[in-house]
Amino acid sequence: MTQDPSKEEIQAYFQSLQDQICKALEQADGKSSFVEDAWERPGGGGGKSRVITNGNVIEKGGVNFSAVYGKTPEKILEALQLKEADFFATGVSLVIHPNSPYVPIVHMNVRYFEMSNGVKWFGGGIDLTPHYVVEKDAQYFHQQLKSVCDKHHKGYYTEFKKWADDYFYIKHRDETRGIGGIFFDHLKPTNEISFTDRFNFVKDVGNAFSTTYTHLMNKNKGIPFDDSQKKWQLLRRGRYVEFNLVYDKGTKFGLDTDGRTESILMSMPPVCNWDYNVQPNPESEEYKTLQWLKKGINWI
Amino acid sequence: MTQDPSKEEIQAYFQSLQDQICKALEQADGKSSFVEDAWERPGGGGGKSRVITNGNVIEKGGVNFSAVYGKTPEKILEALQLKEADFFATGVSLVIHPNSPYVPIVHMNVRYFEMSNGVKWFGGGIDLTPHYVVEKDAQYFHQQLKSVCDKHHKGYYTEFKKWADDYFYIKHRDETRGIGGIFFDHLKPTNEISFTDRFNFVKDVGNAFSTTYTHLMNKNKGIPFDDSQKKWQLLRRGRYVEFNLVYDKGTKFGLDTDGRTESILMSMPPVCNWDYNVQPNPESEEYKTLQWLKKGINWI
Repeated sequence: MTQDPSKEEIQAYFQSLQDQICKALEQADGKSSFVEDAWERPGGGGGKSRVITNGNVIEKGGVNFSAVYGKTPEKILEALQLKEADFFATGVSLVIHPNSPYVPIVHMNVRYFEMSNGVKWFGGGIDLTPHYVVEKDAQYFHQQLKSVCDKHHKGYYTEFKKWADDYFYIKHRDETRGIGGIFFDHLKPTNEISFTDRFNFVKDVGNAFSTTYTHLMNKNKGIPFDDSQKKWQLLRRGRYVEFNLVYDKGTKFGLDTDGRTESILMSMPPVCNWDYNVQPNPESEEYKTLQWLKKGINWI
Repeated sequence: MTQDPSKEEIQAYFQSLQDQICKALEQADGKSSFVEDAWERPGGGGGKSRVITNGNVIEKGGVNFSAVYGKTPEKILEALQLKEADFFATGVSLVIHPNSPYVPIVHMNVRYFEMSNGVKWFGGGIDLTPHYVVEKDAQYFHQQLKSVCDKHHKGYYTEFKKWADDYFYIKHRDETRGIGGIFFDHLKPTNEISFTDRFNFVKDVGNAFSTTYTHLMNKNKGIPFDDSQKKWQLLRRGRYVEFNLVYDKGTKFGLDTDGRTESILMSMPPVCNWDYNVQPNPESEEYKTLQWLKKGINWI
């Protein structure tokens, strides 16, 4: 007899997480609220896309919840070398693009996947993309994630931090998307770690989001900026687009499998820009930021 | 004994085409000029990237010439099931993003590729992406391309127009990038069509560009527009980004094979935007434009 949390329980947690995060972000923003768009998936299930725009702090943000099921898409079956199986997937996915170039872009995803053949796992991650890297903020962000990880397994932070460095990497620019964070996938139960442990870890990751990010919002939202810093922000948003459309597996998979395009591409920034061959002056803050966009930095 | 044009001759034509097009675009713009950035490829060869910005008509445009050679990238060898071969590739590639939402975005590429095992071919295409589709302009554009095609082969236009419809297609939006044009690849000599004939066709495609596009610039540049039309333009530019980063084979190949990123991504628009789930009013010009973004429309 198994005492594993059921998929209904996991789904209910994710749904409550969406509520909790939206509330915390609205409070921290202080002006705008989320607008919800509920949708159904033709093959089974659906979701709630919530979008916030034109806030005090948030220029555009999306927090998605979904719980979908049905016949497993061909691409997954191939990857798993299976002929046929039903699947169930649920999760929360968010990206926040702030007004100020001094407030970082943030992304989080927590998800659960199971198949009718009994395979089931958790995945997810959080990563931060400051337009201007501030060492102290980077340290704070990584320390928060490390605390969550350490609570569950002494190896988690090192492993998942490296995974994030490798994952959130824009190969054609030879730069990381931002200062990384943690990334994990296919977290199945092991002899050492139960399914419930895995779920508890994912819950703690999800629950840590609001405090961690609203701290960075509050700390940085008041810093004055001018057109040249805003211009830099639009360029960095362009890099964010490049990562999401060229490399991000979730985006690619969603688009490949006829996912709901508007929900998948909620991660796209508002106004962004591409200029040709921008090379910041080596004395500038922009240049310093580029030097931080490397793998393997020990922020803590 | 073969009388085929040499690769030097082909390269010289493409280089002169870049000059010719830049001159014509500068004249039609009337304000800004191209700035050249010559670059070398570590593995052999190089190119000239030319960028024009902040013109009267052109907000951002790039016209690239390159002639590169060396060891064939692994990805091409795999696709052609070859173990090892040297390659030579030369071509011109351009994308123009105008200021006005009433002047269409245009893209053209003409290219030549040969390998040390004797395989050689031409490829290329032109396609037009109006922010607002105007039937008469679409008809004009396709008629110009058809005239070029008809001069060389009665089957070219139908075949290459369909190829463009299929190629310039944004699957996850179920819409074409714009009104299409022509696209062709792997044009090798046949019993019926000589290598020289192929080259002459590609030359005529390249030579037709300036007249065709500057006509559309001149005709539409003076049409007044307001913020709502500009906003629509930024959204359509977002779709252009989606096509280039998700589907365009040239872009993907370039990024995959460590091409020169800044030259490859010269095709990216200046300021663009993503809004969540924009659904134009069925009475609007924006809505009408979306209805035209379908495959298989006979514009002529």
